[in-house]
Amino acid sequence: MISVAEARQIVRQLKFENRVKSTNLKNALGYVLAEDLTSPIQMPPFNQSAMDGYALRLHQKPSYRLIGEVQAGSAENPVMQRGEAVRIFTGAAVPDDAEAVIMQEKTKVEGLTLIINEIIKAGKNIRPAGEQIREGQIAMNSGVRLGPAAIGFLAGLGIEKVNIYQKPNISVVATGSELVAPGKLLNRGQIYESNAIMLQNVLEENGFETEEVMQIADDYESTLEVFDRLIGSNDFLIISGGISVGDYDFAGKALQELEVNTLFYKVRQKPGKPMFLGQKGGCTIFALPGNPAAALSCFYQYVLTALKQFSGETTFSLPKLSLPLKHEYHKKGNRAHFLKARIEDRQALILSKQSSAMLHSFATADAMIYIPEDQSYTAAGELVEVSLLPFGKCHLLER
Amino acid sequence: MISVAEARQIVRQLKFENRVKSTNLKNALGYVLAEDLTSPIQMPPFNQSAMDGYALRLHQKPSYRLIGEVQAGSAENPVMQRGEAVRIFTGAAVPDDAEAVIMQEKTKVEGLTLIINEIIKAGKNIRPAGEQIREGQIAMNSGVRLGPAAIGFLAGLGIEKVNIYQKPNISVVATGSELVAPGKLLNRGQIYESNAIMLQNVLEENGFETEEVMQIADDYESTLEVFDRLIGSNDFLIISGGISVGDYDFAGKALQELEVNTLFYKVRQKPGKPMFLGQKGGCTIFALPGNPAAALSCFYQYVLTALKQFSGETTFSLPKLSLPLKHEYHKKGNRAHFLKARIEDRQALILSKQSSAMLHSFATADAMIYIPEDQSYTAAGELVEVSLLPFGKCHLLER
Repeated sequence: MISVAEARQIVRQLKFENRVKSTNLKNALGYVLAEDLTSPIQMPPFNQSAMDGYALRLHQKPSYRLIGEVQAGSAENPVMQRGEAVRIFTGAAVPDDAEAVIMQEKTKVEGLTLIINEIIKAGKNIRPAGEQIREGQIAMNSGVRLGPAAIGFLAGLGIEKVNIYQKPNISVVATGSELVAPGKLLNRGQIYESNAIMLQNVLEENGFETEEVMQIADDYESTLEVFDRLIGSNDFLIISGGISVGDYDFAGKALQELEVNTLFYKVRQKPGKPMFLGQKGGCTIFALPGNPAAALSCFYQYVLTALKQFSGETTFSLPKLSLPLKHEYHKKGNRAHFLKARIEDRQALILSKQSSAMLHSFATADAMIYIPEDQSYTAAGELVEVSLLPFGKCHLLER
Repeated sequence: MISVAEARQIVRQLKFENRVKSTNLKNALGYVLAEDLTSPIQMPPFNQSAMDGYALRLHQKPSYRLIGEVQAGSAENPVMQRGEAVRIFTGAAVPDDAEAVIMQEKTKVEGLTLIINEIIKAGKNIRPAGEQIREGQIAMNSGVRLGPAAIGFLAGLGIEKVNIYQKPNISVVATGSELVAPGKLLNRGQIYESNAIMLQNVLEENGFETEEVMQIADDYESTLEVFDRLIGSNDFLIISGGISVGDYDFAGKALQELEVNTLFYKVRQKPGKPMFLGQKGGCTIFALPGNPAAALSCFYQYVLTALKQFSGETTFSLPKLSLPLKHEYHKKGNRAHFLKARIEDRQALILSKQSSAMLHSFATADAMIYIPEDQSYTAAGELVEVSLLPFGKCHLLER
């Protein structure tokens, strides 16, 4: 049995052989860039007007002679003499002869004469060619996760294809003879399967697809067969249940028989003590507790970090804050606690019903509070580590 | 021209006719529940063992007679006399006659005799039927956004279909004759289109699909035709560019001609001053600036809130924190500022290159800082309002 800190470190040190693939930029949302990208063009590609107004070839007088117009998108580049002006619009190419652009609000037009109402310096309201980036300069570094702004920025440079880290192939297996598919009536002893659908959804929430999602009974031979096949064909196998000490907990036995290399088994934490991490060949295996809230807690704290690392995001964790605890908390036992919490008035509030079998409090939680194993008493107002859940509402300020 | 506070309030007060539809629970991730759901079963459905161990019909002595076994999933319900024990496993149905379950680690078995090493009280390690929820009790309230935990919880109750609020139909139009599709060579005056792909991706990032994504030239007739058609067939039309005062800014003119009801035009903010919000029939129209960083800033601060409201989430905003500013900031002018920022050492750091035409700083930002219009000077260390971006890395604590 290891500590949370040790378990976190083992997860951080997992090594993966990232696979790189080329993809269209428009399909790259959420992927991590696997190359340093250089810009094929300078940006802006020409001296660009930042305003609707008039491009001027400056002279000392307030009146200019209007000689033409350049629309946005136009290739025109009128020759201008000193004291001449050209009507111009935001985003349009400033004529090579022009030295500044004046906002139209600061001008008056009388026939072909433009009167300007302010003293204007050379360069005003012109975005010089290459101001954002020069041709051949690094546009974005390897390791950046591609969000909407990154994709927009690269699209603006004319980049169409990018090399990204592939996401892992993942399969999910929920074990337990008591599990029944929805739509059937429950006999005594049976419950509806919920871990597989929950894990599939938490994967989807975080941008991961699943290859196979299965439910198997507590039967050693079929457990062995299914695990063997899925370990051979996936980068990650996520198992729920069957890893405890019961006579019918076949997951652990099957993983042993398949010679999966154990990285850890059991963590001093509540919920999620009987958690297993191992590797075999190219497959990383997480076996999570069968209790739904424990499984989800382990997913957010460990599995997600490993999946992100595989995908090229080397420093992922849920966003973490340090917030004062609303009420005092007495922790029993020597395990660390992960507590479902809500954030109210910039304080962290521990929700009732923390049992690892109960998902309801998780469903309405904003965050998880981490209480270290050696901290048996936390006073009201004391700062605690809080991880924000993706679905949480965390309005820490008044709106 | 209105203030940011006024603009926020107008967005919050937008009224939509939410549409409700029935969907399979497995397709409900990210949707908002449109009904109070009652539980069709009690949970757990039977007295459930919380441990691997032995179910006991208690008596005063430490030795019990072993008479059978109940596996998880089994319907067996052995009759037990006082002083008898039954082998049992986590999740299995506790026999009706049993009064407690003892962990197997606290026992010893000698033939058919079980010796227990601890004093055990009635009810120990039994999760009573209905402890989590009773049949007919409210399982989840209307208005909850369905995350993985909520979906797992409802699946565990055997619920297969739920009524949810539909998400809006959304189309996106980027305007500008200077815009060129990727793959083509740029002539003088032309730039690559990036707002449409950026807006499509920020919608996807936040769980919204797009109906049509178009790029149109600065031409009044085609602008009018396209807007008219899209307003008639969408819940939201998001436009970028063409809303300023230039002679070829046809978006505003077309919206006027189509008798779109203006809710606001122009906000005292930087970037994003020339922002428009209007409604016609069932369609809500946001016209955003053509500068990409300005458009994205407006999206996160206003458009996303409106889209979430339509989808049944009444109190959405990006998660907000109050953090000390790393360096002092002098704000020029009387507009509020939204600044691309990074979070480092629990401080908010303003990134360089804030120009509304520049997306690069947005691509690497964690958050946006809001500086109110009347706050011209912010000292280092002063608390500022920070909105966390979905793609940001916000590890506010050491890991």
